[in-house]
Amino acid sequence: MVKDRVVLAYSGGLDTSVILSWLIDEGYDVICFIADMGQDEDLNAAKEKAIECGAIKFYLEDLREEFVTDFIFQALKGNAMYENRYLLGTSIARPLIAKKQIEIAQKENAKYVAHGSTGKGNDQVRFELSYYALDPTIHVIAPWKITKYLQQFQGRSDMLNYAEQKGIPVKASISKPYSEDGNLMHLSHEAGILEDTMLTPSEDVYEITKSPMNAPDKQTIIEIEFKNGVPVKVTNKEDGTVKNKPLDLFLYLNELGKENGIGRSDIVENRFVGIKSRGVYETPGATILWAAHRDIEGIAMDREVMHLKHMLEPKFAELIYNGFWYSPEMDFLMAAFNKSQEYIDGKVVIGLYKGNVMILGRDSLTSLYNKELSSMDVEGGFDQTDSKGFIRINAIRLKAHKVIVNKKKIGLK
Amino acid sequence: MVKDRVVLAYSGGLDTSVILSWLIDEGYDVICFIADMGQDEDLNAAKEKAIECGAIKFYLEDLREEFVTDFIFQALKGNAMYENRYLLGTSIARPLIAKKQIEIAQKENAKYVAHGSTGKGNDQVRFELSYYALDPTIHVIAPWKITKYLQQFQGRSDMLNYAEQKGIPVKASISKPYSEDGNLMHLSHEAGILEDTMLTPSEDVYEITKSPMNAPDKQTIIEIEFKNGVPVKVTNKEDGTVKNKPLDLFLYLNELGKENGIGRSDIVENRFVGIKSRGVYETPGATILWAAHRDIEGIAMDREVMHLKHMLEPKFAELIYNGFWYSPEMDFLMAAFNKSQEYIDGKVVIGLYKGNVMILGRDSLTSLYNKELSSMDVEGGFDQTDSKGFIRINAIRLKAHKVIVNKKKIGLK
Amino acid sequence: MVKDRVVLAYSGGLDTSVILSWLIDEGYDVICFIADMGQDEDLNAAKEKAIECGAIKFYLEDLREEFVTDFIFQALKGNAMYENRYLLGTSIARPLIAKKQIEIAQKENAKYVAHGSTGKGNDQVRFELSYYALDPTIHVIAPWKITKYLQQFQGRSDMLNYAEQKGIPVKASISKPYSEDGNLMHLSHEAGILEDTMLTPSEDVYEITKSPMNAPDKQTIIEIEFKNGVPVKVTNKEDGTVKNKPLDLFLYLNELGKENGIGRSDIVENRFVGIKSRGVYETPGATILWAAHRDIEGIAMDREVMHLKHMLEPKFAELIYNGFWYSPEMDFLMAAFNKSQEYIDGKVVIGLYKGNVMILGRDSLTSLYNKELSSMDVEGGFDQTDSKGFIRINAIRLKAHKVIVNKKKIGLK
Amino acid sequence: MVKDRVVLAYSGGLDTSVILSWLIDEGYDVICFIADMGQDEDLNAAKEKAIECGAIKFYLEDLREEFVTDFIFQALKGNAMYENRYLLGTSIARPLIAKKQIEIAQKENAKYVAHGSTGKGNDQVRFELSYYALDPTIHVIAPWKITKYLQQFQGRSDMLNYAEQKGIPVKASISKPYSEDGNLMHLSHEAGILEDTMLTPSEDVYEITKSPMNAPDKQTIIEIEFKNGVPVKVTNKEDGTVKNKPLDLFLYLNELGKENGIGRSDIVENRFVGIKSRGVYETPGATILWAAHRDIEGIAMDREVMHLKHMLEPKFAELIYNGFWYSPEMDFLMAAFNKSQEYIDGKVVIGLYKGNVMILGRDSLTSLYNKELSSMDVEGGFDQTDSKGFIRINAIRLKAHKVIVNKKKIGLK
Repeated sequence: MVKDRVVLAYSGGLDTSVILSWLIDEGYDVICFIADMGQDEDLNAAKEKAIECGAIKFYLEDLREEFVTDFIFQALKGNAMYENRYLLGTSIARPLIAKKQIEIAQKENAKYVAHGSTGKGNDQVRFELSYYALDPTIHVIAPWKITKYLQQFQGRSDMLNYAEQKGIPVKASISKPYSEDGNLMHLSHEAGILEDTMLTPSEDVYEITKSPMNAPDKQTIIEIEFKNGVPVKVTNKEDGTVKNKPLDLFLYLNELGKENGIGRSDIVENRFVGIKSRGVYETPGATILWAAHRDIEGIAMDREVMHLKHMLEPKFAELIYNGFWYSPEMDFLMAAFNKSQEYIDGKVVIGLYKGNVMILGRDSLTSLYNKELSSMDVEGGFDQTDSKGFIRINAIRLKAHKVIVNKKKIGLK
Repeated sequence: MVKDRVVLAYSGGLDTSVILSWLIDEGYDVICFIADMGQDEDLNAAKEKAIECGAIKFYLEDLREEFVTDFIFQALKGNAMYENRYLLGTSIARPLIAKKQIEIAQKENAKYVAHGSTGKGNDQVRFELSYYALDPTIHVIAPWKITKYLQQFQGRSDMLNYAEQKGIPVKASISKPYSEDGNLMHLSHEAGILEDTMLTPSEDVYEITKSPMNAPDKQTIIEIEFKNGVPVKVTNKEDGTVKNKPLDLFLYLNELGKENGIGRSDIVENRFVGIKSRGVYETPGATILWAAHRDIEGIAMDREVMHLKHMLEPKFAELIYNGFWYSPEMDFLMAAFNKSQEYIDGKVVIGLYKGNVMILGRDSLTSLYNKELSSMDVEGGFDQTDSKGFIRINAIRLKAHKVIVNKKKIGLK
Repeated sequence: MVKDRVVLAYSGGLDTSVILSWLIDEGYDVICFIADMGQDEDLNAAKEKAIECGAIKFYLEDLREEFVTDFIFQALKGNAMYENRYLLGTSIARPLIAKKQIEIAQKENAKYVAHGSTGKGNDQVRFELSYYALDPTIHVIAPWKITKYLQQFQGRSDMLNYAEQKGIPVKASISKPYSEDGNLMHLSHEAGILEDTMLTPSEDVYEITKSPMNAPDKQTIIEIEFKNGVPVKVTNKEDGTVKNKPLDLFLYLNELGKENGIGRSDIVENRFVGIKSRGVYETPGATILWAAHRDIEGIAMDREVMHLKHMLEPKFAELIYNGFWYSPEMDFLMAAFNKSQEYIDGKVVIGLYKGNVMILGRDSLTSLYNKELSSMDVEGGFDQTDSKGFIRINAIRLKAHKVIVNKKKIGLK
Repeated sequence: MVKDRVVLAYSGGLDTSVILSWLIDEGYDVICFIADMGQDEDLNAAKEKAIECGAIKFYLEDLREEFVTDFIFQALKGNAMYENRYLLGTSIARPLIAKKQIEIAQKENAKYVAHGSTGKGNDQVRFELSYYALDPTIHVIAPWKITKYLQQFQGRSDMLNYAEQKGIPVKASISKPYSEDGNLMHLSHEAGILEDTMLTPSEDVYEITKSPMNAPDKQTIIEIEFKNGVPVKVTNKEDGTVKNKPLDLFLYLNELGKENGIGRSDIVENRFVGIKSRGVYETPGATILWAAHRDIEGIAMDREVMHLKHMLEPKFAELIYNGFWYSPEMDFLMAAFNKSQEYIDGKVVIGLYKGNVMILGRDSLTSLYNKELSSMDVEGGFDQTDSKGFIRINAIRLKAHKVIVNKKKIGLK
């Protein structure tokens, strides 16, 4: 009998290795897929482990470039920041992984895809909504929402026993008292001891960024150049380093951010499944980039476009966070956001110093800033008497309102 | 003949002193009013100068407490930040000054109010819209929009000559090559040499905050306690200092912020009169407070309330910036924002360090965060299998959309 | 052993009678509750039937007045209309029924509530979200989502057999080929033959409204008076009838609407569970009231309040439709909407004629309309030269944008 | 000496004829331009009159087709309706007229454009913002905002005297006691006797639509077919008439609307210059089209796209009303709106009867409506037990909120 095929989003860790074996137990042929998103892990070791565990095939795909250009830079256009504080490093990565997983499933004629995300988190939603949005006929196996699986694996010890029994190699390393997710955009820390919202993460929780307290005593000055709202060049004004390819420049910003203690964030956020959770994030490069992008928009974006966009940006971030990257409403918003970036060109000079991203100056060939017009010293084409009419007309309805307020106060007659 | 009376918003500087004399020339009895908003100026000297220049009366009012409780804390409830970067230190102050000025005009039977703001800026709008909104019958004299005045005073030298002729004392101090506006919330710097958007302000531009580079090498840890969305107590965890009165605690946060290099901002912003302008701001205490408020909202505010509020916050900031503090639309928004703060209680622990406001922890008796519910280790009342239905139902319309996309791609039949 | 108690939202129909018996089978003591919402049914017969079927207790509550004042009139303040076309007659009713049901459960120490809504519709969501929002400890029994129940009752014949076996009286009447829900606000028709979106409902589908084609050939002229945004008086200008109590005046508007063929609507709408469905509605009185309310807002509401409110009204309708009547985000919106109604006083004259609600005139003591100011013939305090400055300042950023567009078109240099 | 050239938006009426002569008095060479927007006027007579009055050149351009396709149909995509009631017939026309006027000015090397709109209305804003947006260097002459002109022409008699003196032919027709603006989209009536908001317009005010009371006693059934959100075909189901060209089908809908008493509206609206005014409108064809478009969106548009779009539609209408057709914020919104129409195909069947536009059915090849999925009778791929998890997860935060409400009610401890 031909077995059903399932494409599993595999990480190389204990959880997905157990799922891999369990899926085989359940009678599936399992194809493992691991996406290289720039996470700091030995992906070749993961491959070997998957094969050892019984995967019939293994896909390792380097998605780093695509992640930067088609996901991070798209998010940047909308200044995506969930609840004003989380830069969405995990949320943005999931739809890309899901997309490749579906492509593999279609290529391999697999009717099933599987992932190892739990039933309380956001990632299950992001994976599965992406799967369904890209292939409405796909079937999803999410063991952590399957009663049978949940009964078999009620705790970590059940998994360790199962691993031993199945010969799944388990890293000797001491597991951290919280969980992490990393890629080239960020490293997140949550759960475990971090569930106490008053507990300040100790310095060893932060892995990729230096503490602002240990960062260099001297600022690093860089210049970021944008074209149509995305960065096209990063220049280190100290040592002359220049990066102008998307992946390169992003990784370089990461390097600078990490060194200078930039991009730490400790928040309580709202999960899509209705729960508040505490997250601790390190997002070095993107923190710099987001600040620079806001600044270049400051000089090159029309006021009313900006204000409309600012109203919609929280929704944009919410869609990403909740897993609606592939959705008609995202296409709707993105059409407007792409339009808004047409004239966002220019360069921003930035000082990086012990956790601070300091804007030092900016200029743009598409600048809407007009020194003469703005100047308080010269007229520059602005007739100050125009302001009289402008204000008086803006005041008309305020006066009318006050008349009614007074009238109603004394009793209408 | 009885002269018409005008109440002038007086600063003690050259500009409003010239206006004072000019108004007298024009045949008015001038009552000068100066608001103590915590600006760093000798207000008694200003009083003497006004009398010397011919003011028939002088009002000096200490509005600092009211500024903090009824203006800054109201803005805080809406996390007011114009274009995501400007904390509105000047914008929030203007309506309060205007309110008192109108009260004096009504008390003194003055049909006129006057101010010295130019015709290219935002402050003229904020003053005048407030005047009209509070007293629809008031007449406004804004010399910088009066042709006669503009012709008489075409440059600073005309004013200096006029001052000499009228015996108006002029400070010997060398005037700065840009202009400033200060109160207890912030100090702003704009115009002059700062009109070059690539020019990084030299360190001497910043007057009230230490540079992050010169701030202490050790972080200061404080705790801010909130009740109904406003701060009620600040505790210095290092030395045990406690402040629990609005003005005291705000000034204390200022002190800590200044010392730790917090609250500098350099932006290009959009004025209401259609011009982009560059502003450099120092807002130490409010920067700390805003960060803390966002964090306490993070743990105590419902998700959907927060997301709706985030959508409306840019509008709220815009209304403040544009001078619509006293307006029916502000009352409309504020009703909702006040409602949203009913359960925003709790405390936030913060580390202040060289320009950084680092959230170290938070807790709240009205917390919506539920450790068990959130936990990845224990079930805590959350049935993970519920997520299956939740996701599947959220996916229905995504699947339907994809079916149509595919259908239209191959040509409808 | 003491049995667990469940309060069932009972209708008297076959479905909830079967559920009543089934709950008894399952070992519960069942308390039946029927809300008098003005539906056209024999509620005393329903009571007898419930007792006959084994209910240990029966509650019949007349909620009509509360439905009008605390639900319909609240919705009116926000001009609630889902997807611009559905007046939410069912959606608004559910939270009130749920509220009373929870009150009874608390009084009767019942840990369970039950309802008969299916698992594909909106009503299940509205009931259950209301239950949980009002009593977080309540347990919900929704048989149509219970596998055991679904297996036992796979079609109408299973229910009829069960009814016969249990001695549940079944009405001999021929069942309609679609389903209905009615209360004093509306009558809805959906499902069955109406699932064909091209099928025009035959005239006998509409039960409470005359066809516009059969309505009187003469218009009926009425006047509706509002105070703080809600109607306080309806006057028939033809025969002098006056109604000034909430329930009375609403029922009277219904009567007039029905007679004049007003309030029919045939739409395809989006259910909260991700499905599109077709609904045919008759909402006579509310259709008149909504039109009148919009018109009185037109004369008495400030422009900016109105435009902000219009932006939020779709969200308000969505919250009602989706079952979030009792939610913090509803409280948030409602605070603003209540504020907006403070000055919405006045009267609107309306002609009712064969399906048309024609506004014939309006006046208000809180009117912001100023005949002289508005007049094209007299100046009325409006200085036309003010418009020059107003327009020129509004044009500044449009000009700046065009300059950049042209610049980029020819290539930046 | 070469005279400066001005292109005047000429109507053929007294006002613009007087302006034409006055501009010549002022020393300009005047080029008259009249746009054929489908208004019911003798445009050739207007041409002769202009030449007679001294215009050096005359442009008459038939813009009807462009008006329908590039303006009315664009507005339709956003369901543009100002303050929910005004279909913007005048507002949409102005930018097109302004565009052609600027094109003529550029072709004729005229540095000036002129129009005859008053200083209290919206049209001055729409004209001038369009002029400036399209040509930032243009100079605008708006006589009704020029003090000299206002002093010379203080009333209609001044204009009549001037006309006599200059030999300007004046129509003998009795002028209406209110003013009108017409084009193929609508006819508006305002000012004069209509400034009394309680005065019901007598039947002779309405010129293009039959009264619902005089319309045929039999409904007319038509079908409108849409492709990408715009109508491509109108079929009369009674007599088989088919129209499938934009201008033809729009004029045909007008004809049907007029005959059936459709599209009258009497409102108080908010002008951009801060004044409320009363407007009476007749918009027959567009009223039908807007209703049909909403209905086809109902079946073919994704829910979340629709809800986002509904939130933005009031802003879209506001931009059109206020004269920002040519603006970056309009481009921003339109990018999203155009995206939203990609799958809006299908046909709507409509009954026209005495003022009513009754939707009788609709169908679409891009329909997102799924009869099986929607059905209450068959499962159709929808697992009702999914709803359980869906609701329970949506309830989580409502429960948490209620717990806090209760907790705070009894006093926090």
